[in-house]
Amino acid sequence: MKVLITTVPFAEKDRTPLDLLEKNNISYLINPLNKKLTENELKELISDFDIVIAGTELISDKVMESATNLKMISRVGIGLDSVDLLAAEKRNVQVSYTPDAPAPAVAELTVGMMLTLLRSVHVSNSQMHLGKWHRFFGRRLSEVTIGIVGVGRIGKAILEHLKGFGNPRILVNDLSVKDDITNEFDIEWCSKEEIYKQSDVVSLHLPLTGKTKNMIRKDHLFSMKSDAIIINTSRGGIINEEDLYEVLQSGHLSGAAIDVFENEPYNGKLKDIERCLLTSHMGSMSVDCRTRMEIEATKEVERFITGMPLKGSVPDSEYAVQREGL
Amino acid sequence: MKVLITTVPFAEKDRTPLDLLEKNNISYLINPLNKKLTENELKELISDFDIVIAGTELISDKVMESATNLKMISRVGIGLDSVDLLAAEKRNVQVSYTPDAPAPAVAELTVGMMLTLLRSVHVSNSQMHLGKWHRFFGRRLSEVTIGIVGVGRIGKAILEHLKGFGNPRILVNDLSVKDDITNEFDIEWCSKEEIYKQSDVVSLHLPLTGKTKNMIRKDHLFSMKSDAIIINTSRGGIINEEDLYEVLQSGHLSGAAIDVFENEPYNGKLKDIERCLLTSHMGSMSVDCRTRMEIEATKEVERFITGMPLKGSVPDSEYAVQREGL
Repeated sequence: MKVLITTVPFAEKDRTPLDLLEKNNISYLINPLNKKLTENELKELISDFDIVIAGTELISDKVMESATNLKMISRVGIGLDSVDLLAAEKRNVQVSYTPDAPAPAVAELTVGMMLTLLRSVHVSNSQMHLGKWHRFFGRRLSEVTIGIVGVGRIGKAILEHLKGFGNPRILVNDLSVKDDITNEFDIEWCSKEEIYKQSDVVSLHLPLTGKTKNMIRKDHLFSMKSDAIIINTSRGGIINEEDLYEVLQSGHLSGAAIDVFENEPYNGKLKDIERCLLTSHMGSMSVDCRTRMEIEATKEVERFITGMPLKGSVPDSEYAVQREGL
Repeated sequence: MKVLITTVPFAEKDRTPLDLLEKNNISYLINPLNKKLTENELKELISDFDIVIAGTELISDKVMESATNLKMISRVGIGLDSVDLLAAEKRNVQVSYTPDAPAPAVAELTVGMMLTLLRSVHVSNSQMHLGKWHRFFGRRLSEVTIGIVGVGRIGKAILEHLKGFGNPRILVNDLSVKDDITNEFDIEWCSKEEIYKQSDVVSLHLPLTGKTKNMIRKDHLFSMKSDAIIINTSRGGIINEEDLYEVLQSGHLSGAAIDVFENEPYNGKLKDIERCLLTSHMGSMSVDCRTRMEIEATKEVERFITGMPLKGSVPDSEYAVQREGL
């Protein structure tokens, strides 16, 4: 069995995943391009591998077509927008993932971004490094209304963090009302449209699916308060990037924080907007979460190879989402 | 009675303080230079004013010498390092301040800086704006040891915020052990030296006094872990700036966040260090806290002029600190 590890960095802070593979005499190759692979690069590279330990690169039907030995995809992370689950099913390729591990790291990054944007810390920092002094006004979390679109693992962890910050008004939305969230937190359920209109901070915690792709376009952004901020640490493509650029360029919104992009590595126009805080898909990149993700994904490969029952098989509901049209 | 308002911005987001003055027919002048005044600028400006609503500019014996009508200083904020209290006492100048109002805003800024530095968000943001993509590793709050030097109003608010972030190990130090802190929070009291050695995050919440000036020098910074971070949102001069620059330049410490400087506006060498997050003394600059500070300081002026009992008189303990040598 030969394993291709496409996600980078891999085993950089903790060697355990490689030790696991070596202990089982599994030969592996770590992504030699050391960057997120394009569809064509992966198609070329994957041909004689049996298993992929995958990042967020596109594993399409076309890629699988050339991966004639492929038996398993083990995703390091939660999003499945990059994997054509139906093509995998058709070819009897098993898909596993690690949906719990990234959440704590993404939630903390998001709260940090809220605090940064509300106080214009990123703008002050850029200007101070150019020798310009200006005391920006800001707002505290308890002064604002926070809208969380998507209260799964990550949204819930954010609600937990916000408990220590007085009592901000919090609006939430999800596919359906979740009683555990309602019982544990002081929140109000409302429509996405109401969240955009009423919130000072909007944060997205959704998978990328046919329904969420381009979910936030120009008119949604313009329906937000002129001094509101928007944060996306979930998946690129949920906010239309071109529209976000135009809206920010027009002076609307006091800031944005974007960690995820339609095309990664990102090198697009948002970099010209000083009040748009940009990071390089670092949501899950805390040492503990990243290590846990890598170890879980590798253990799943070990289980697969040694014929043990899998623990992270992608559930039917995810296949159903794609069947409805990604 | 003529009032000089030196602190800027003033009444920018909320006109209430000016309304209060006008209602009482008090004539006022807002700092015409619209920046932190130097000792000489203030000396020149202050000569025929009765009252100063003051920022952090130096109000020295020399300044008061030329302020022959001066009867009261109302500080917008908490620090008294800028006011020569003994000179004021000698000349029968009443000094009031607003010690509670800034704390919530400073605490939130500080927690935001912790989250930013632990994930290298500021470095990623600078690099992304230059078109460079790199996924930085970081740590979560619950993975690290946090050292809080000074657990007064601000340090305590930070402990409150940290409650929502799992259970980080927290070390604290103050002039004496405070039972209310010990009872309410899961913390360990220890010496400043132990805090420097053991913490991954060191945050300072102290007044600037003779004892704290240059309290953190090169050897203290080098005693910290090589990947630790240090945050100063209290007063410039507590960390020796030249030493901090040298230590960061040498590669020691993974980051620093500095909001306060020996000389403000700051335009010094730290701006050459990308991983040093710099902000322009914005700790108290949330709209609600800043407004509360300005209104409280102005109401105190109103009380003084109308002969009502003052509410924010600087306590004897602050005079004692300066008597022991600022």
